[in-house]
Amino acid sequence: MSLHTGPSPVTDARPGTATATTSPRSTSRPSASGSSTASPVPPADIVVFGGTGDLAVRKLLPALYLRDRDGQLPEQTRIVATSRAGLDEAGYRDKIRGDLPGFVRDEDHDDAVVDRFVERLTHVSLDIADEDGWAGLVAELPDADKVRVFYLAIAPSLFGPVSDRLAAEGLVTAQSRLVLEKPLGHDLASALEINDAVGAVFEEHQIFRIDHYLGKESVQNLLVTRFANTFLEPLWNATWVDHVQITAAESLGVGTRGGYYDGSGALRDMIQNHLLQLLCLVAMEPPTYVGRETVRDEKLKVLQALKPLVGVDVDSHVVAGQYTAGLVEGEAVKAYRDDAEAPASTTETFVALKAEVSNWRWAGVPFYLRTGKRMESRFSEIVIQFKDVPHPMFPDADGVSEPNRLVIQLQPNEGMKLHLTAKEPGPGGIRLRPVSLDLSYAQTFDQPSPEAYERLLMDVVRGNPTLFMRRDEVEAAWRWIEPIHERWARPEHAPRRYPAGTTGPFAATTLIERDGRSWHE
Amino acid sequence: MSLHTGPSPVTDARPGTATATTSPRSTSRPSASGSSTASPVPPADIVVFGGTGDLAVRKLLPALYLRDRDGQLPEQTRIVATSRAGLDEAGYRDKIRGDLPGFVRDEDHDDAVVDRFVERLTHVSLDIADEDGWAGLVAELPDADKVRVFYLAIAPSLFGPVSDRLAAEGLVTAQSRLVLEKPLGHDLASALEINDAVGAVFEEHQIFRIDHYLGKESVQNLLVTRFANTFLEPLWNATWVDHVQITAAESLGVGTRGGYYDGSGALRDMIQNHLLQLLCLVAMEPPTYVGRETVRDEKLKVLQALKPLVGVDVDSHVVAGQYTAGLVEGEAVKAYRDDAEAPASTTETFVALKAEVSNWRWAGVPFYLRTGKRMESRFSEIVIQFKDVPHPMFPDADGVSEPNRLVIQLQPNEGMKLHLTAKEPGPGGIRLRPVSLDLSYAQTFDQPSPEAYERLLMDVVRGNPTLFMRRDEVEAAWRWIEPIHERWARPEHAPRRYPAGTTGPFAATTLIERDGRSWHE
Repeated sequence: MSLHTGPSPVTDARPGTATATTSPRSTSRPSASGSSTASPVPPADIVVFGGTGDLAVRKLLPALYLRDRDGQLPEQTRIVATSRAGLDEAGYRDKIRGDLPGFVRDEDHDDAVVDRFVERLTHVSLDIADEDGWAGLVAELPDADKVRVFYLAIAPSLFGPVSDRLAAEGLVTAQSRLVLEKPLGHDLASALEINDAVGAVFEEHQIFRIDHYLGKESVQNLLVTRFANTFLEPLWNATWVDHVQITAAESLGVGTRGGYYDGSGALRDMIQNHLLQLLCLVAMEPPTYVGRETVRDEKLKVLQALKPLVGVDVDSHVVAGQYTAGLVEGEAVKAYRDDAEAPASTTETFVALKAEVSNWRWAGVPFYLRTGKRMESRFSEIVIQFKDVPHPMFPDADGVSEPNRLVIQLQPNEGMKLHLTAKEPGPGGIRLRPVSLDLSYAQTFDQPSPEAYERLLMDVVRGNPTLFMRRDEVEAAWRWIEPIHERWARPEHAPRRYPAGTTGPFAATTLIERDGRSWHE
Repeated sequence: MSLHTGPSPVTDARPGTATATTSPRSTSRPSASGSSTASPVPPADIVVFGGTGDLAVRKLLPALYLRDRDGQLPEQTRIVATSRAGLDEAGYRDKIRGDLPGFVRDEDHDDAVVDRFVERLTHVSLDIADEDGWAGLVAELPDADKVRVFYLAIAPSLFGPVSDRLAAEGLVTAQSRLVLEKPLGHDLASALEINDAVGAVFEEHQIFRIDHYLGKESVQNLLVTRFANTFLEPLWNATWVDHVQITAAESLGVGTRGGYYDGSGALRDMIQNHLLQLLCLVAMEPPTYVGRETVRDEKLKVLQALKPLVGVDVDSHVVAGQYTAGLVEGEAVKAYRDDAEAPASTTETFVALKAEVSNWRWAGVPFYLRTGKRMESRFSEIVIQFKDVPHPMFPDADGVSEPNRLVIQLQPNEGMKLHLTAKEPGPGGIRLRPVSLDLSYAQTFDQPSPEAYERLLMDVVRGNPTLFMRRDEVEAAWRWIEPIHERWARPEHAPRRYPAGTTGPFAATTLIERDGRSWHE
């Protein structure tokens, strides 16, 4: 098997030699007052393609508003939305002023900040296919030395054309960054095509492929807990870890995305990106330091160490499922085939699989991944289950010890918990009881965790790609996924049915229980 | 050097073969109602020699009252106090009814329970030296099959004579236990003498040498946290532990004990028993299981592995101190020599020392022990400081990681805390902050920890010696202490002066700081 080699990883400057434009420390504090301790980012022109779309309105603008509220955006930071909506500046400002309250919590709403924030906004009417429309955008970007963010909240088929156009208009500067949303292709070939197209215009270090799972506070916390402490790393290997579970369960169905989804499926939509990225963060070796390229180098090594699932191994290690009609939280919901209006669809809305990282640290430790739509409840979590005590030490005790577990909760509430066995206080006799310790520190710091997009957008402006997927990572993930799709392309493949509102097909339970383990619910 | 060999450890029955009288599970529930989940103990006759003394009135009877309150004492359990006070049964009951409120918290006081409790009490007037007085005690102990506890809350010089007398009166049955309070000798020879004397009458498994530090909930918790979980044991060795600190600081002076204390000193009074016992629990290997003799076998191994401090090593590894006049919590207090009315005394009221456990697990890890009177504050704790991260992983972070520490608090509040480095929540940038995790579970279980004497008394009745010092342990501890006393016997030895209300002599700070470490305050 020949290994496709992507561009060499860009090795960034060692700490201490960061250039002024990307180091927040060399930036003067913004004039806007903020109550937070958030480090200010450099001034930037943030161009949002698809500026009236769902992602922009629901996620990106609220995230930027909150960063403004906390004083993280310098006065000079501007936001240029483009769309075909035919809005002028005032019209767009009014729209966002009206939309914001729907996507920002009441306690975060501040009229004075909204006033300040909308002043940053402008709108350029632009049809991407029409060369003439671009002059308006060029006019809004006069300063070539300012950080420039092009956020493509548009269809992936436009990633290449927009990049070309940006280059043609002379808008791509040294301080430009391009932000791409998933899906980054639907297989290795199409991913290469997108990467080649944007790579022809932007340097790899300028391209920020967003995976919002990586922006979660609990994922950051995992890195700090692992690498700023000594107590976890000695346990973080096949000697002490029994297995790892990564679950991303949704209670929603495909909704209005049925058309898109039916050409994709859960393996592409969730496993290839989100779940494999989480697996990488759990399994990666300590990098030289936690920095721009070092973390991505280590994640890539994990993807490259994933034992390929090919041929009959796919049948034994991967379970595909598709929801049928059922009850979710007491409400009757339709089958996937009705949601997607695809009566004969074999698209999977559920995947459970057993992966293995074939390296010294993890050999023999199963990584169970699971994702599905129309599940019993919405929750995403990573469970690191440690081996049980080698020997029961308290034969006379009331109760038994349970294996220690570290649970990283991503949704609905972020957090990190260590499940231990403790002694229930009492005079004489030992009563063993399970307890869980909160490692998420929310109480300690009394600060809500920011939304993933807030962090990720600020990292883009700073030029910090640590939490974004590098080209070679995306391609390595596709390379691992492809043989599964190949196996599923056989006519006899059909996903197992599971009623909406359950934990997925029975075969997913069997997948883990035949190893003597069970899913953490 | 010839090694004195004590009696072989009594190997108790393996779990599951415990005899009916010592297994709480085979005992029927007491008729007394109790709100607690405490397992009832077998019915017992508890004889307290020194029944009107300080220890009995302040500690033992309140502890038994609380166990009665929680339904742990069967109806047939009786308490026979002996003294020379010339009280009859009614007089003693009245005395205890009057004394109890002073030593039991208001919220633990329950008139109905007090009524029930004093019904268990009787008093025998007895002069130990007088053979004739014993008939009264014999009359109170008619049932030879009932568990019988002889608690010697009297001077150690009487331990032998009382044992002899109990034997002569035919009171020592198979179900008898003897409880001894410190001091168990003032050197190896006197300890051997006491152990030989009581050992001539009682089997070693019948002798319970109390060290109330071992009865603390937090000490129990340490055993469970270490041995009912996998997460600590891999770190519990010289590879990951930087050093251990054990501190027992008192703010009180010698008070009315000056006369006794001046012949003893802190090394005998605290280090030889309490601090070395705590060191043993921290350093011991996992026993086969946590059981009657197994834990003591492992503790003995630690004492035997202590690197001897002999000759000039004593000067470099042990600091003796004696308090001078000073201020404790704002109040002027006298010098030790005035407290003890011994103007030329060289008795130490403070000891700091650096010990090493010479075995595979701990070689090279210093165990710093420290105890003193008239210190700045009263606190006892064990600190296990882990090594710092091998390499700083977050060079761009705000803040640095601090070494992980597990702190077991014994006084004034019991608890266990794990000190970690965490990420302060926030969008972008990493801010490392120290946090402490409560491993004491008080909140989880919402139950106050029982007093050490409550647990230890119930263990005596059950015949469970796990938390008591075995003969060979006491002797091994004396064997390690003796060369220090020998060195100090030289005329040029003088303890360093430290003002009352401070953290001890400056030399104690130097002792640890010359190793690049510092005392945990």
